[in-house]
Amino acid sequence: MLEYLYPLRTYLIVSGVEKPNVMTADWVVPLSFEPPMLGVAVGHTRYTHRLIKECGEFVVAVPTIELLKDVWIAGTMSGAKENKIEKLSLTLVDSKKVKVPSVKECQANIECRVVKEAETGDHTFFVGEILAVTHGDAFVGGKPDISYKFIMHASFGKNFTTNSSEKFMP
Amino acid sequence: MLEYLYPLRTYLIVSGVEKPNVMTADWVVPLSFEPPMLGVAVGHTRYTHRLIKECGEFVVAVPTIELLKDVWIAGTMSGAKENKIEKLSLTLVDSKKVKVPSVKECQANIECRVVKEAETGDHTFFVGEILAVTHGDAFVGGKPDISYKFIMHASFGKNFTTNSSEKFMP
Repeated sequence: MLEYLYPLRTYLIVSGVEKPNVMTADWVVPLSFEPPMLGVAVGHTRYTHRLIKECGEFVVAVPTIELLKDVWIAGTMSGAKENKIEKLSLTLVDSKKVKVPSVKECQANIECRVVKEAETGDHTFFVGEILAVTHGDAFVGGKPDISYKFIMHASFGKNFTTNSSEKFMP
Repeated sequence: MLEYLYPLRTYLIVSGVEKPNVMTADWVVPLSFEPPMLGVAVGHTRYTHRLIKECGEFVVAVPTIELLKDVWIAGTMSGAKENKIEKLSLTLVDSKKVKVPSVKECQANIECRVVKEAETGDHTFFVGEILAVTHGDAFVGGKPDISYKFIMHASFGKNFTTNSSEKFMP
């Protein structure tokens, strides 16, 4: 029933401090302007679920299509069983306000502290207050440049697309 | 801070029974496979906020770019002050499982009953269990056909784009 909301943007969720992990997530949503908040739904069985519960922080990193191979690995390999970070060609760097690291190769890193949780079926919905953001050239002036190809999940599985660079005005 | 998650898909939210209303929303997210659930964040000051609180149901309708003018009107005019439905060239039709109507011209209508609410800053996050879906040709087999141009909000304001029809495999 959920694929009727697709295609959806795909992001990376970083969590954990001592042994950070990177997970792929389509289920990310803005929630509030003031204070700035966003939410992410994470499956109960995910390693990231445990990490966010433990450290109370996460980073939403914004990949572009050049990172698709890493996004696929991060979404299909479990960091609980293998050293996922070693398999990824991503560089973890210090964040500004949270202990959880950011992803250097991503076009934005949104640093969040968990302020609320809600159980929603087989996922936990983590509500994060946004404490800081760092960004690359795709967000000059704080707005996305749609000539960049952000990753979209076209439907479940190995099916991806991107945004158009075409502009429409109503 | 929230535009770092953009461009984001744009949907229509239908609510109300006796005098239904249609609102535009980018802040929509899948939440659970089993039971199937999704969430939508609605600003406290919105007429739709009151309607969802009253009737406990809403429909997420999936527009394509042909409906952009209606999507803009639905997102900028308040149904509390004016008869918004009259200004829209959209047809409200009976839904399958909920009393709130669906939008005939949309490619999917996802019928939801509110099962949980969470206060998140200046918005309320309504969690809906998906009771039924109806769809058009863009979802044959239940999966999106990305040759259709679904609406994406490029950034806040009058800036829209769509998905690419290009396919990427990791």
